[in-house]
Amino acid sequence: MEFIDGTWEKETCGWDVLMSEKMLGREVCVDGAIHSIRNMGDVAFIILRKKEGLFQCVLEKKETDLSIHQIREAMTVRVKGVLLKEERAPHNRELCICKLEILSVPAEPLPIAIDKWKLNTSLEAKLDYRTVSLRNVRERSKFKIQEALARAFRDYLYGQGFTEIHTPKIGSKGAEGGANVFKLAYFHKPAVLAQSPQFYKQMMTGVFDRVFETGPVFRAEKHNTKRHLNEYTSLDFEMGYIDSFEEIMAMETGFLKYAMELLEKDYEKELSILKIKLPDVSRIPAVRFDTAKELAAEKYHRKIRNPYDLEPEEESLIGRYFKEEYGSDFVFVTHYPSKKRPFYAMDDPEDERYTLSFDLLFRGLEITTGGQRIHDYETLRKKIADRGMSEEGMEQYLDTFKYGMPPHGGLGIGLERLTMQLIGEDNVKETCLFPRYMNRLEP
Amino acid sequence: MEFIDGTWEKETCGWDVLMSEKMLGREVCVDGAIHSIRNMGDVAFIILRKKEGLFQCVLEKKETDLSIHQIREAMTVRVKGVLLKEERAPHNRELCICKLEILSVPAEPLPIAIDKWKLNTSLEAKLDYRTVSLRNVRERSKFKIQEALARAFRDYLYGQGFTEIHTPKIGSKGAEGGANVFKLAYFHKPAVLAQSPQFYKQMMTGVFDRVFETGPVFRAEKHNTKRHLNEYTSLDFEMGYIDSFEEIMAMETGFLKYAMELLEKDYEKELSILKIKLPDVSRIPAVRFDTAKELAAEKYHRKIRNPYDLEPEEESLIGRYFKEEYGSDFVFVTHYPSKKRPFYAMDDPEDERYTLSFDLLFRGLEITTGGQRIHDYETLRKKIADRGMSEEGMEQYLDTFKYGMPPHGGLGIGLERLTMQLIGEDNVKETCLFPRYMNRLEP
Repeated sequence: MEFIDGTWEKETCGWDVLMSEKMLGREVCVDGAIHSIRNMGDVAFIILRKKEGLFQCVLEKKETDLSIHQIREAMTVRVKGVLLKEERAPHNRELCICKLEILSVPAEPLPIAIDKWKLNTSLEAKLDYRTVSLRNVRERSKFKIQEALARAFRDYLYGQGFTEIHTPKIGSKGAEGGANVFKLAYFHKPAVLAQSPQFYKQMMTGVFDRVFETGPVFRAEKHNTKRHLNEYTSLDFEMGYIDSFEEIMAMETGFLKYAMELLEKDYEKELSILKIKLPDVSRIPAVRFDTAKELAAEKYHRKIRNPYDLEPEEESLIGRYFKEEYGSDFVFVTHYPSKKRPFYAMDDPEDERYTLSFDLLFRGLEITTGGQRIHDYETLRKKIADRGMSEEGMEQYLDTFKYGMPPHGGLGIGLERLTMQLIGEDNVKETCLFPRYMNRLEP
Repeated sequence: MEFIDGTWEKETCGWDVLMSEKMLGREVCVDGAIHSIRNMGDVAFIILRKKEGLFQCVLEKKETDLSIHQIREAMTVRVKGVLLKEERAPHNRELCICKLEILSVPAEPLPIAIDKWKLNTSLEAKLDYRTVSLRNVRERSKFKIQEALARAFRDYLYGQGFTEIHTPKIGSKGAEGGANVFKLAYFHKPAVLAQSPQFYKQMMTGVFDRVFETGPVFRAEKHNTKRHLNEYTSLDFEMGYIDSFEEIMAMETGFLKYAMELLEKDYEKELSILKIKLPDVSRIPAVRFDTAKELAAEKYHRKIRNPYDLEPEEESLIGRYFKEEYGSDFVFVTHYPSKKRPFYAMDDPEDERYTLSFDLLFRGLEITTGGQRIHDYETLRKKIADRGMSEEGMEQYLDTFKYGMPPHGGLGIGLERLTMQLIGEDNVKETCLFPRYMNRLEP
């Protein structure tokens, strides 16, 4: 009987070994994709793309009977040779090839030149050839940054006593109601895709006190802007027994601090490729919605058109204000008007026109919406009735409150937006692996 | 200007402080839900439910002017009092209440008795009142075990150089084809929900070499069995530059080892509540599909009806065989027949009727399907043609292979099934927070 014990010896060596001093002058075996070839006649440079970065190999006619003409870009190969010190090469080393085994051969030349530092193709072309354009080193590194953000979110919250949950994406009714839901047939019954895990995460504070989820959400919005996706990854948490809604903002700030530390520690390479300067998140200013509007209007000579709404340009100006006045890339805008928040938002007992809620703006763009929720059954029912809404389809949600719920609140962060602002991209489609918007369902 | 700095001082103390020796004899403040009340006349015991467990408080008439009649189950409260050593109480301590603040009041008594050790209600009733039944300490602990498994999967793979990806759940065509897809309208275009991230994770091995995803998958199967869900959480990984398909099995075994270590280290409480004895995963037997069938048929005197298929009873007997003969709860069954695997599975060059693939059985139930995939463009097209399938809707997938792909393979693990087998439940609906099956779309 054969047994599998969880270990595996590879003949090829990993990046760490390749970069170590002790391997210089020794024979190594390494695999990768041929990223580019520079043929100089007697010598050819073959650049391998590995997950950690690019690595230079050199093919010298006198060292091998292999012909450069057998080798093409986008082949995947296993190369053997001696690792030599070479100060003109990246990482001060190169592999002098003595043997090259071809693992796979492309059927056609690449449709876009991925070995350019910055792809100079249109966004649409990049997305049409997404699985190829992502092979560009700069493009793919965006998604390592994205990985770090989701990873930091979970790790920080595990440490704060949160439980991870997985809530269903198919349900009988959307959490936020309204028209922006995708509809489907579930074995002949009408169903919708979840716009957010809102109801579920709230209900689960009665079970686990603190919960989080990182998963897809679906919005059938007919927007086609640089800020919207029809499917995106939402980082959601909800916490019970809060003292006030400011405690939620403190938890988010703690996460951001942790995320920046993780990026600095484990994602140095990608930060450097993308030339990202990490923002200071040690203290984030918090300002009331109405005050924020006034400050921006006054400083930038802009008339307040609608006192109950924040237009995108206003968000941008508020971001600019807090950067200029306080040096902060982030600002919490608190106490949003009640009529602009969903029914479950808790109104401010001191002025019921406003809610105990907030948005977090990062460089002038909303990346988070959060706040305290109503936890009392009758208050919740009254708010639903006052808004002329129906309880239909919300029976299970409301029942949970009937049986007692702790004071609680939480937030949702758009992962692609957070990534976009951190990297300095101007379109959220750039920071989604396979974006879904009105005109795109593929690849 | 107010600033948020990521710290928050709570008046209430956490579980660790409550359990520490230094707090005995001192005044503490603690919050939680009233899980149960035992009124003995002069004394009443109030059991608080906190996320970490149950905690006993005692209300003595002579110590406070608070009446036990004001207090009800399912209230959430903040309690102040002195922490006393009490050997008859769990954790050898109880809080002698001097002040009790009511945070929220339920509108009705609970519909099920959640303070029982084991809920003696039907599965359907449990699911109908899911947000209440999960407040039972034993019920909720199942999902901490589930958390540990997903967490271990990610943490282990980060350490093995994998990149986390988020792939779209709405697409133009299902990865596996066939009828078992949920259909929806995407802005008047036909679309489907992803049955798995199969195509995406494969395509991403050409970018990141090694990728993983933990997310929902959707199967419109008209089953209603103890093993099936119509929406579940899939733990998927895919790795490039593999030496053979056994390397994938080694990676999975490494994950399982890591998961058991994490459970032992951080989830001791839940293991003890659920009386889980962790299985030995230090070495897992691997056996060919045809041999496994023969071994089970011979030992248990069962006729082989179909040499190309494994029936559930056969899986169960193979599991039993390897438990009895080798003491293993797990067994890898390898070399599944080609006709039972999807087109992208790589056939065994030594016998093309079989594939370089495997299932992992855990206590007689399949919890993983995996294997090596075809990475050569023409081979892939030929297999599609040989099967009489159409390339329509797979253009982007096939194009990726046209432009070169490394040898690769991977697997998918059903999180709910893995949890179910580890806990020893007999129905997968027990280990899904909000299960979706043919007759259930709520809560």
